Amino acid sequence: MDKLSFIAMLLDFYGNLLTEKQRTIMSYHYEEDMSLSEISELMNISRQAVHDIIKRSEKILLDYEKELGLVDKFLKQRQKLIEIKNMLIKKQYKDLDEIIKMIDELIEA
Amino acid sequence: MDKLSFIAMLLDFYGNLLTEKQRTIMSYHYEEDMSLSEISELMNISRQAVHDIIKRSEKILLDYEKELGLVDKFLKQRQKLIEIKNMLIKKQYKDLDEIIKMIDELIEA
Repeated sequence: MDKLSFIAMLLDFYGNLLTEKQRTIMSYHYEEDMSLSEISELMNISRQAVHDIIKRSEKILLDYEKELGLVDKFLKQRQKLIEIKNMLIKKQYKDLDEIIKMIDELIEA
Repeated sequence: MDKLSFIAMLLDFYGNLLTEKQRTIMSYHYEEDMSLSEISELMNISRQAVHDIIKRSEKILLDYEKELGLVDKFLKQRQKLIEIKNMLIKKQYKDLDEIIKMIDELIEA
């Protein structure tokens, strides 16, 4: 996963822990793909300030992930679901018990 | 889900955002099922202090869940997995495409 998608995902998980201003600027940048200059103009703050707020917000989000690891957990769970889906589509399983066991492991995790 | 299991789950998700002392006391109480008096004796602080730290920690954990809703999201995802598992066990599905579609919805969520 590239850095941009990863930060966007952190924003989705932990964004509510940012201040409203931080969240707005991060959303403009990571979700609406706006440049620093565009955000600077729209928010009426300097380009440098936009840059600093983005860097500070990224650090906050990364720190939360370091403590909680919930995005990592979620991505691993999704990876397993994709595996199960592909096994079902390609009929690559011995019997359904094998699939049921994999789903059970996800439930227990 | 009863309150005790719910708080234990919040502790599992967000516990790392508590201070070490808060986390320790919450873990004694919610994971190791120790009474306030037992914790009070072990930690050498008053029973009232143990009570206050638990109430304060519960509030912190509940506030994080209110902002992030990740435990709720996780529980709903698990409920869907249990549904899929039961459908597979009881063979209550039209065809495997129905199951694949349900797994796909979980992947996209």
